[in-house]
Amino acid sequence: MLKVNAFDQQQAASLGADQRQRVERRARLLGPAYQLFYDQPLHLVQGSGATVTDHAGKRYLDLYNNVQSVGHCHPKVVAALAAQAGQLNVHTRYLHDNVLDYAERLLASMPAELGHAMFTCTGSEANDLALRIACDYTGGSGVIVTEYAYHGITQAIAALSPSMGSYVPVARDARVVPAPRHLPGSPQAVGRQFAAEVRKALADMQRHGIKPAALLVDTLFTSDGVFADPAGFLAEAVAAVRAAGAVFIADEVQPGFGRTGSHFWGFQRHGLVPDLVTLGKPMGNGHPMAGLAVKPDILQRFASQAAYFNTFGGNPVSAAVGLAVLEVIEEEGLMANAERVGALLKAGLQSLAPALGTVRGAGLFIGVDIVDASGQPDTLRARGLVNALRDEGFLIGAAGPASSVLKIRPPLCLRREEAERFLSALARLL
Amino acid sequence: MLKVNAFDQQQAASLGADQRQRVERRARLLGPAYQLFYDQPLHLVQGSGATVTDHAGKRYLDLYNNVQSVGHCHPKVVAALAAQAGQLNVHTRYLHDNVLDYAERLLASMPAELGHAMFTCTGSEANDLALRIACDYTGGSGVIVTEYAYHGITQAIAALSPSMGSYVPVARDARVVPAPRHLPGSPQAVGRQFAAEVRKALADMQRHGIKPAALLVDTLFTSDGVFADPAGFLAEAVAAVRAAGAVFIADEVQPGFGRTGSHFWGFQRHGLVPDLVTLGKPMGNGHPMAGLAVKPDILQRFASQAAYFNTFGGNPVSAAVGLAVLEVIEEEGLMANAERVGALLKAGLQSLAPALGTVRGAGLFIGVDIVDASGQPDTLRARGLVNALRDEGFLIGAAGPASSVLKIRPPLCLRREEAERFLSALARLL
Repeated sequence: MLKVNAFDQQQAASLGADQRQRVERRARLLGPAYQLFYDQPLHLVQGSGATVTDHAGKRYLDLYNNVQSVGHCHPKVVAALAAQAGQLNVHTRYLHDNVLDYAERLLASMPAELGHAMFTCTGSEANDLALRIACDYTGGSGVIVTEYAYHGITQAIAALSPSMGSYVPVARDARVVPAPRHLPGSPQAVGRQFAAEVRKALADMQRHGIKPAALLVDTLFTSDGVFADPAGFLAEAVAAVRAAGAVFIADEVQPGFGRTGSHFWGFQRHGLVPDLVTLGKPMGNGHPMAGLAVKPDILQRFASQAAYFNTFGGNPVSAAVGLAVLEVIEEEGLMANAERVGALLKAGLQSLAPALGTVRGAGLFIGVDIVDASGQPDTLRARGLVNALRDEGFLIGAAGPASSVLKIRPPLCLRREEAERFLSALARLL
Repeated sequence: MLKVNAFDQQQAASLGADQRQRVERRARLLGPAYQLFYDQPLHLVQGSGATVTDHAGKRYLDLYNNVQSVGHCHPKVVAALAAQAGQLNVHTRYLHDNVLDYAERLLASMPAELGHAMFTCTGSEANDLALRIACDYTGGSGVIVTEYAYHGITQAIAALSPSMGSYVPVARDARVVPAPRHLPGSPQAVGRQFAAEVRKALADMQRHGIKPAALLVDTLFTSDGVFADPAGFLAEAVAAVRAAGAVFIADEVQPGFGRTGSHFWGFQRHGLVPDLVTLGKPMGNGHPMAGLAVKPDILQRFASQAAYFNTFGGNPVSAAVGLAVLEVIEEEGLMANAERVGALLKAGLQSLAPALGTVRGAGLFIGVDIVDASGQPDTLRARGLVNALRDEGFLIGAAGPASSVLKIRPPLCLRREEAERFLSALARLL
């Protein structure tokens, strides 16, 4: 995971006394799992819209945080949170209208076949639950994932997240396929090649006596390095998986809730109706909530027999927050904004070639290859750019197997002039 | 799971039009996993202290919800939530003082050996993470759990929760031991017998070539039916497990945060220092947050190599809420209250024998056996009592393999007169 952009604890001596103390206190209290971004860690104290502010009052344009997708601390979302938290917050074994109103509105944004919604607290839990349902429905255990996928951190889902690195083994019955390739010259080959890889994985499962359960992919392939085009390329692979008796789980934790601009859900770009859809990150604009949508016939037996219950999932406060987020996306036209500003950003980045490599993405999720003179992934240069931009007041990240793909995914409320400010700064740095 | 106290969807016709509609809407939107409590489901709209109010304005004394442990919608907790949510809510890869202040305060409530805190969103995630760490540290895969344990709902943890029932298989390398027995006549035998069962499980693991990883128990054995006494009985089993190279994970999701009255953590009643401690439910008084405390040497390799990160876990809002909860517990003397009112409640329940069976528990977590004339678990009578109490305005639940143990675990702020009111109502019903 976090390679290109991690603070090196050995460099703590280079920090000012205050921040050094904070970094040391963190290491002492939280231990080694808690990494920090940037060569000079950021100490943030405030957020609003697409802007975050550090302890010294310096402002940063946030082009990284896709969780706070309607804008940091959106007043309508905070008000909904505070109002319901002051009224009642209990689990779903009592009747409450919030969870029903929210489920109804959420499902209305999806194809009618996805009839049921279930609620968890994190995307990891959503993928974990989707996996359990898929294995139950198919009777299978074989899951296909891409080579640098990230789907979450429960034991079962970390084992389906090859991006965790070699220390975390991939599940025995899983098969890892290469991410889709970017082939602007022959777009129709992208889907064909990806489907061929998926068919190879299915054949290998058969060879080993493993019954296929699911194809699990992020519909934007974000941690693989952002592979969005051509829209529709996923369909052939999904058909192959279904022909083998397995289901298609669309991981919408990153692509969902309007981020792609053209569609509310990433799978819609591919003209597909998934069997299960998992949701997370931006769902509560930072409030811990996640969930899934599923076809009723696929859920039926599992839900009746296995008695799934999530203490916090779907509580009235989370549902109120989720509803407010959906309302803001609609009221403020954030999907259209993502499409408009995303297109501007993408075109601007493309105009910076050849200093930048290939630019890929949809809406406000953009990946930019950073390559060396020979066209190879340039991890160090990517790291340099991410840190130089941070110093200039712009926050982005990096993704992909070599952490050489700039990861640009601002809140959906990013304004045109903010995008232009970022493009100018980047042009200056290049 | 939920057997004694579940609403039967077939009975929807018996409800008033409004509630019938709500129940049907739930089934349509959320599917079959979402069960409701009580023969007549409750439609709650408000909560304050230990009181919840339904849509018709009827008030209920809440003796069930251990999540809202400092009282429903506690103003100080809601204020902390609203204030920080309006300020900044981001992940832990930036510096922020809230998570450090919270971790420091949380760890200060535990033995010094438990040096690191990590944060998740649910108790399931906390147990899942603890399991991963334990397996990594020991190199083992064998986990010992009790026969009706519940530790959570991720795939890995559901497989260590035999109370899920026969549809959810127990992990191949896990071993299930009987819950501790209640032996008031020979208290010193409780620990000896439990340790003997644990030793048998360890021997069986050895016989099958399974390396032991952990003993994972709720330190009050709540879902097994509440087995608290004698304090200290767990020590011999833990010693056996450690001698076999495995670690002790104390699941404090239910016993923790002062519920036992005499101690802040359930493991302290047993005079033990666990290797890992998992936390959840009352940690945020309803806000989705959970976590674990762990000895640094046990965490070291996993945390350095496996790069655990939880998007929402430990965010500044959750940390502010967690801090407020700890402050309220201290400022309002809720631990002492739990001890005082818990003792009153326990004595009052014991005085209702022989209409009630054995009364067990510590502080404000009490289990009461409901048995028939021959002393056998009486599931139907327990169900009748739970529902009759609901009609009288008192909310409790049921636990144990036969759902025949009344589960009484009110918010820690339960007042003496509220406990007395409940005891009078129960006496009338009996």
